Amino acid sequence: MNSVKVGLCGLGTVGSGTFNVLQRNGDVINARAGCRIEIVQVASRRPNPDCQLGDTPVTEDVFAVARNPDVDILVELIGGITVARELILDAIAHGKHVVTANKALIAEHGNEIFNAARVKGVTVAFEASVAGGIPIIKAIREGLSANRIEWLAGIVNGTGNFILTEMRDKGRAFDDVLVEAQQRGYAEADPTFDVEGIDAAHKLVILASLAFGIPLQFEKVFTEGISNLDTQDVAYARQLGYQIKHLGIARRNNGGIELRVHPTLIPRKRLLANVDGVMNAVVVKGDAVGPTLYYGPGAGAEPTASAVIADIVDLARTLTADPEHRVPHLGFQPDQLSDIQVLSIEQVETAYYLRITARDVPGVLSKITQILSDAKISIEAVIQKEADDGEDYVPLIILTDRAVVKKLDEAVDKIQQLPTTEGDIVRIRVESLG
Amino acid sequence: MNSVKVGLCGLGTVGSGTFNVLQRNGDVINARAGCRIEIVQVASRRPNPDCQLGDTPVTEDVFAVARNPDVDILVELIGGITVARELILDAIAHGKHVVTANKALIAEHGNEIFNAARVKGVTVAFEASVAGGIPIIKAIREGLSANRIEWLAGIVNGTGNFILTEMRDKGRAFDDVLVEAQQRGYAEADPTFDVEGIDAAHKLVILASLAFGIPLQFEKVFTEGISNLDTQDVAYARQLGYQIKHLGIARRNNGGIELRVHPTLIPRKRLLANVDGVMNAVVVKGDAVGPTLYYGPGAGAEPTASAVIADIVDLARTLTADPEHRVPHLGFQPDQLSDIQVLSIEQVETAYYLRITARDVPGVLSKITQILSDAKISIEAVIQKEADDGEDYVPLIILTDRAVVKKLDEAVDKIQQLPTTEGDIVRIRVESLG
Repeated sequence: MNSVKVGLCGLGTVGSGTFNVLQRNGDVINARAGCRIEIVQVASRRPNPDCQLGDTPVTEDVFAVARNPDVDILVELIGGITVARELILDAIAHGKHVVTANKALIAEHGNEIFNAARVKGVTVAFEASVAGGIPIIKAIREGLSANRIEWLAGIVNGTGNFILTEMRDKGRAFDDVLVEAQQRGYAEADPTFDVEGIDAAHKLVILASLAFGIPLQFEKVFTEGISNLDTQDVAYARQLGYQIKHLGIARRNNGGIELRVHPTLIPRKRLLANVDGVMNAVVVKGDAVGPTLYYGPGAGAEPTASAVIADIVDLARTLTADPEHRVPHLGFQPDQLSDIQVLSIEQVETAYYLRITARDVPGVLSKITQILSDAKISIEAVIQKEADDGEDYVPLIILTDRAVVKKLDEAVDKIQQLPTTEGDIVRIRVESLG
Repeated sequence: MNSVKVGLCGLGTVGSGTFNVLQRNGDVINARAGCRIEIVQVASRRPNPDCQLGDTPVTEDVFAVARNPDVDILVELIGGITVARELILDAIAHGKHVVTANKALIAEHGNEIFNAARVKGVTVAFEASVAGGIPIIKAIREGLSANRIEWLAGIVNGTGNFILTEMRDKGRAFDDVLVEAQQRGYAEADPTFDVEGIDAAHKLVILASLAFGIPLQFEKVFTEGISNLDTQDVAYARQLGYQIKHLGIARRNNGGIELRVHPTLIPRKRLLANVDGVMNAVVVKGDAVGPTLYYGPGAGAEPTASAVIADIVDLARTLTADPEHRVPHLGFQPDQLSDIQVLSIEQVETAYYLRITARDVPGVLSKITQILSDAKISIEAVIQKEADDGEDYVPLIILTDRAVVKKLDEAVDKIQQLPTTEGDIVRIRVESLG
């Protein structure tokens, strides 16, 4: 049996998971791959007690792996952008194939990296960069290759989904759950990437490029986080038959491509609305296949290792293939990428959930609905509560029909200026995903 | 751009869907494949009004396609077993790659077909044979290649799932919904394959071989249909926090492989329990990745065509590859298949839902629970209803802990023989899928 030689850079959570799964499941992995996958070198600054390296040679210098003539495939699991980018480009320059789990790097520097790989005739595989162990990149790039993808929507950040699930099920406040998520190790000490949607935007950009055959354009994603989300809105959404999820949405419409990450009300009957806790899921709507959904653990040592190793096995099979016959990095042949534009958020039309805190006097609802009606924004549903004893203000919840931001902004501004309106009007986007 | 030449055999629902999607989406499909996918011949006994063939040459003789020197890939969509088997073996003998959606053929003759293909160095692709447009075969065979698969469970027959969903949501009887399913075109005039689980067994056998690396063994699947399912059991299951689904289950346990299709109570909180109507879904539990789920349309012209065309694109990429570097038919290298045995249903342990119709006299429950306790079968939950006015008998519903069939049979026999028991005791298996 031939042997394929892997150099593993980084021995953190995912690195040690990859090493351990390759050891434990070597028999089935090799029986599938038709060759022996062998780790010939590990680069790590410090040992990881979760990982018994045995006789495997270790270096502190990741670049030594990129230059090791024995290495066929370099696995980049050091994270970060600066050194990781240099390392991958160096590996490519030395004719190595690369496997990475680094979503930030692919989202922000993927075009440059894929181009360098193409010039050298090697492949950079990145299944583990989106949604951990779910083979979503393979599904879009190969499984759905017959389709014109219409849209995709995903829960691609487990930390955010855990927080939203707890807010809904236990009525807890955002800040309170965030502290627990940090204690459990789901959220980083600096949770900005997770809760402000930056991590989700990295993943969305990658999925959108695969779906629509466009270059990676991270700077064009509209991103809105969940840190300002109020528990009462999660509860009102539920009363209206919706769940609030922090979704990444990519959609092709007549004018271009929408790329956006924001809290979103989705109908509770959708399978995606029932994806809870730290789990991830992505719905992809193709014109031929219809809606398909992919669900699983989006993070963690072994789920991510599962995707890293699947990439290694795929590469092991194509080491001897001529580069033209490999699956292209972004699913489409590099000279066939589309220049269809990514739309600004102002050009995007969605439905809205509005929560207005209004003085409890006659005629308030009528004035508000008149403003929406004048703006030609239809109302789909309303919840009007009676005021509690001694309260002068009541929450008024309105689900609108689809409207562009500008039209909605103007109407909301007018409602905001009514003398009966108290505090800021809350607005959250609504998607039927039908 | 190179061209890959396809011969399409069969112009029924899936055949015409394949032709139409290839025409409509030719631009994106070719941009992904890096070559032009071209239908050079169609074999069909009669024209299909859903399909404008234009200049495409048509023959009535499917074997002419197998022998057409211009054809690279033969697509078998004629269905049935006898002619389809001969056709595929003839195509292989003539050095063609083959794509098929024929689950019965693969489940019953796949070992022979794959062996013939291996000898000739060609590939037989069958993504469309299981769960229509969901790329489940690719997911197990390639996406989860790092994993020792522990179990999988799937809703792989849309007709059956539609019937169960209607029984639950509208309290309708099985026979009544079946007639509607036939009118809507979901169920065949002879619905046996769907409702007795034979179709699901075909698909389960294929998935199990990919998951565990074992030869196809259709004759060893235990199959129980849904035609005897009573609407009241669907309702009681719901009260207990479960849904009844017609599942195909494959599990590796210490002694071997379980392969079984039967109505199953599963906890309502599982995502799989929320897959309704004609949709399909499969959960795969790997030791590294954990549980992943794949959901989508399991049948229909274009969803199935989506899978057929994905196979064509994959094959187009590997036409020039040496056979050793292709993905093996059953995921594992042919010389690495395992001879681990498939267990008989007597060796399988599951929990059970029991419905006993019992005379409404004191001490009945105590006698029944004593029998179960003597057999060392624990009770997880009980529903005991008061008798309606004028009724002498009440339903008594019991959820048991896990037990092998023999032990349960003996206990149920004893309960059946109690003078207080009326009619047959209903038993349905329960799986936590945890």
